[in-house]
Amino acid sequence: MSTKAKDAEQLAYHGAEMESGSLLSTMRHSAAHVMAAAVLQMFPDAKFGIGPAIENGFYYDFELPRPITPEDFPEIEERMRQLIEEDHPFIREEISRQQAKEMFRDQPYKLEIIDDLPEDAVISIYKMAHFTDLCRGPHVESTGKIGPFKLLSVASAYWRGDEKRPQLQRIYGTAFPTQEELDDYLWRLEEAKRRDHRKIGRDLELFMISDEVGPGLVLWLPNGSIIRRELENFIVKAEAREGYQHVYTPHIAKLGLYKTSGHWQHYRDAMFPPMVLEDGEEYELRPMTCPHHIMIYKHSLRSYRDLPLRIAELGTVYRYEKSGELTGMSRVRGFTINDAHIFCRPDQLKEEFIRVIQLMHEVYRAVGFHDYVYRLSLRDPSDKEKYVEGDEMWNNAENAIRQALDELGADYVEAEGEAAFYGPKLDVMVRDVLGREFAASTNQLDFYLPERFDLEYIDADGERRRPVMIHRAPIGSMERFFAFLTEQHAGAFPVWLSPVQVVVIPIADRHIPYAEEVASAFSRHNVRVNVDARNERMNAKIRDAQMQKIPYMLIVGDREAQAGTVAVRKRSGEDLKGQPVQDVVQMVLDDIREYK
Amino acid sequence: MSTKAKDAEQLAYHGAEMESGSLLSTMRHSAAHVMAAAVLQMFPDAKFGIGPAIENGFYYDFELPRPITPEDFPEIEERMRQLIEEDHPFIREEISRQQAKEMFRDQPYKLEIIDDLPEDAVISIYKMAHFTDLCRGPHVESTGKIGPFKLLSVASAYWRGDEKRPQLQRIYGTAFPTQEELDDYLWRLEEAKRRDHRKIGRDLELFMISDEVGPGLVLWLPNGSIIRRELENFIVKAEAREGYQHVYTPHIAKLGLYKTSGHWQHYRDAMFPPMVLEDGEEYELRPMTCPHHIMIYKHSLRSYRDLPLRIAELGTVYRYEKSGELTGMSRVRGFTINDAHIFCRPDQLKEEFIRVIQLMHEVYRAVGFHDYVYRLSLRDPSDKEKYVEGDEMWNNAENAIRQALDELGADYVEAEGEAAFYGPKLDVMVRDVLGREFAASTNQLDFYLPERFDLEYIDADGERRRPVMIHRAPIGSMERFFAFLTEQHAGAFPVWLSPVQVVVIPIADRHIPYAEEVASAFSRHNVRVNVDARNERMNAKIRDAQMQKIPYMLIVGDREAQAGTVAVRKRSGEDLKGQPVQDVVQMVLDDIREYK
Repeated sequence: MSTKAKDAEQLAYHGAEMESGSLLSTMRHSAAHVMAAAVLQMFPDAKFGIGPAIENGFYYDFELPRPITPEDFPEIEERMRQLIEEDHPFIREEISRQQAKEMFRDQPYKLEIIDDLPEDAVISIYKMAHFTDLCRGPHVESTGKIGPFKLLSVASAYWRGDEKRPQLQRIYGTAFPTQEELDDYLWRLEEAKRRDHRKIGRDLELFMISDEVGPGLVLWLPNGSIIRRELENFIVKAEAREGYQHVYTPHIAKLGLYKTSGHWQHYRDAMFPPMVLEDGEEYELRPMTCPHHIMIYKHSLRSYRDLPLRIAELGTVYRYEKSGELTGMSRVRGFTINDAHIFCRPDQLKEEFIRVIQLMHEVYRAVGFHDYVYRLSLRDPSDKEKYVEGDEMWNNAENAIRQALDELGADYVEAEGEAAFYGPKLDVMVRDVLGREFAASTNQLDFYLPERFDLEYIDADGERRRPVMIHRAPIGSMERFFAFLTEQHAGAFPVWLSPVQVVVIPIADRHIPYAEEVASAFSRHNVRVNVDARNERMNAKIRDAQMQKIPYMLIVGDREAQAGTVAVRKRSGEDLKGQPVQDVVQMVLDDIREYK
Repeated sequence: MSTKAKDAEQLAYHGAEMESGSLLSTMRHSAAHVMAAAVLQMFPDAKFGIGPAIENGFYYDFELPRPITPEDFPEIEERMRQLIEEDHPFIREEISRQQAKEMFRDQPYKLEIIDDLPEDAVISIYKMAHFTDLCRGPHVESTGKIGPFKLLSVASAYWRGDEKRPQLQRIYGTAFPTQEELDDYLWRLEEAKRRDHRKIGRDLELFMISDEVGPGLVLWLPNGSIIRRELENFIVKAEAREGYQHVYTPHIAKLGLYKTSGHWQHYRDAMFPPMVLEDGEEYELRPMTCPHHIMIYKHSLRSYRDLPLRIAELGTVYRYEKSGELTGMSRVRGFTINDAHIFCRPDQLKEEFIRVIQLMHEVYRAVGFHDYVYRLSLRDPSDKEKYVEGDEMWNNAENAIRQALDELGADYVEAEGEAAFYGPKLDVMVRDVLGREFAASTNQLDFYLPERFDLEYIDADGERRRPVMIHRAPIGSMERFFAFLTEQHAGAFPVWLSPVQVVVIPIADRHIPYAEEVASAFSRHNVRVNVDARNERMNAKIRDAQMQKIPYMLIVGDREAQAGTVAVRKRSGEDLKGQPVQDVVQMVLDDIREYK
């Protein structure tokens, strides 16, 4: 599928929460017919593919004598408006296979659909004005029932998604019950484009992907790397304080390790192929860090007093995603997880979940995520096949997480039957400024790996017992998190994360020495500061700093140099006029400390 | 070769600087004959392999009816002493091949050596007392000339190093001109064992290597990871200040990237085998970061004003070392380089080298390395084959590095003809407390990769020109550096690097609350502090803290709790008695800040 088509699908996905049920999608499906009718007026020889409603809109696939461009949209829309105004009814008829094949004899794609229908299928058509389509329906009563609509994009799409079949042109559009809803949607669409982390990533030089290195393999450029390192330092420090023990482990291991863990059996399609060494030993690029951390657990005999043992790592892992599924930083082949595995006794689960949740709160607050809900996935107790055994173990664990959420007064929903086969999990769904949801973090309880690796601890009574494992990662994949963060802030990152926090702009060359002096007052406190000493006009410098989303612009001229002040302009547009340098240093340091 | 044999060879290597020429090695070779004579007295059926002098000593390989253990050494040594006292002359004779084969008819290994001698070889034997050996010599005049000696170890060794040939027993020994030199050497040997990073790594739980993960793949345990992260933070901060721009790049890339760079052609044996994806594309675990950083250089059009561009990364790389060559952290298959590539104009070379050297100084000072020399490897101007072309380019570059060293008054030697084919290099050899040398850092100038990747910048005159690249890494491989650092300090790391910096030891349980209070005065300043609240006697706690090489032990009892003080004991044994808590906090913070 083309990038554009993927975009549209992504947006469609993102907007999922707007979907208001089958009435809306029926109306959109009817709009697709109206679009097809309009296209048929313009291109009487058009061949038709399919034209369904999708999340947030509809599309229709056409084979046309020339490429359609967005310049054609006004004409198509005008014809659609006309057809809607004329309020043509949608008329359903059932016909025989023979009649259908006769009726669509010039429409090869429709004929293929007819041929693929089961022997006993009821074949229906919908007639509307001059356009008749093979269609199961349902439709609105008449075109007048179609609300405000808009064509959005055109992309190429292989017939039946098969690269070996003809390429058709897919026109995307949407329709809503009211103009207000349409406008809101279009605004969000534009806003999502403006915020697209791939675009901002280019504009602010945050990251790159190189054909020579390979698709889905991100190279973090210096600006993006500053943000990533700040995030890493933040989380490592917070975790150290919370009793996590950080480790570094290799990105590869013998394949046997993933056979023991079961990853190779269950997860192989998403793993890179093994490397076979001279001695016949197979090595594997790791898809997860768990087996490595388990080796560290097993490194010494653990006592009940050693638990909980919280092993943490900024662990880079590699997974084989199909190249068609790769998107910027949000779908990649290599990524770094802010990973940890907590090995604990069953009676410590509640306390550990409370701490895990509190740490997530802390992270979300620091990066400016304020709107999120928890989703607790439980087993279906009536399903005796799917889940690892142990009613008491499951009940204990599920209750522990539930109690942790309750004690913290967290907002959560329960999803019965959605637990993994090896334990319940707690997801966090963050909602961004556009109302899109993002699974920021998964906390997975695991009864299975401790069993596979025969993990033990010596309990107070001297007995060997099995610990429970929690997989948790507040930031999840650094890459995916960063993509979301970039879009959430449209590149205007909180001050503590901004690659350049302060730019000093001398009005004329003679103000450069004072500008340097001002800059050193900031760099002394490890503030990331630049002096823009280029031979450009002040306004151009301000505009560039604004484009770079630099939080503080300090303009210095004669007056400021004499008074020991700076004229402060924030990227929000706020103009703080002249301020003593030390006050501004304090202001910036406060912003950084308070994660503003 | 067995681990023990490798150890001995390593030590031998380490002590290379003690070698005092052929007189010493002649004497050691003679000592090997004396050892063989003594063994022959004990085992009349002994079969003899070879018995050369090696760096720092000698060995002889035997096939014996039973395994030798160090318990046999006193008897062998006693017999050797006897033979030396009797002052037997070494008598050389030349004999025919036929005579030799007759003489050694019961010695299969000697016969094999004879058979392998060239047709026209002069065959000599040396007779000494009852022992006659096939030997080229030379030897000392008589056994009385052999100085003080000592047997060191026994290990198994395949005949001719071939795993398919018989396993012999190799006894290692050494001899010196004076007892003082021998004692000094033996002390250094013991000291090296005591300091062995593998032993300390186990004792202090710094790192582990797991059979399941694979040989040569290091898992840094929490204690080692604290040290590594401190080093990383230190270097990243210093580099940011010095204008380096940090990046993060993937550990894999398409194989084609390493074909362009030439690594695949020249370096393939040391690379892991490629992974072949479904679409036929081959991916390679990277052996170096240079090609990735070059992709970042090429990401945008560079102007002369952008240079020098200093791209830095804590870059993990993987190299395929034969499993027999792997040793602890010093020879591994995966390691992280404190890497950077400086892209600069030829006229910037001197300045860049000055900065590179200064940064190395800073690092070495912080980790307690004070004794090091530079080695400048230059081309051989008369060799027109080996080096990439460009006399002016080479002269300019070599002079730039030389001038940088001179300006800094650095101690260096020049090595003509030892440059890589693609540019001159500057190595730093650090000498440790045992006098062993360690190549801590290599700074390599590179004319070749900019050519391979067609790198360019736009010069002031608008012309496209080729930048020069410097590969540099003050810490080199984090793993190897860490091994050396551990041995240099025998695990008593500088305070800023110590996994636990302060331990508070309450004398009785009733002092635990005060101990916690004291601890929080430290943790408030991010000092890594523990309270040893175990139910153990104070002396046991002090001993354990001493074993863990914790820099500060603070003992608190009634008196201290009342006075608001702590009794300070340093791991050096220094006893500072009672001190106000705040003073000790300051003392520790000073140590950290000053890298003591």
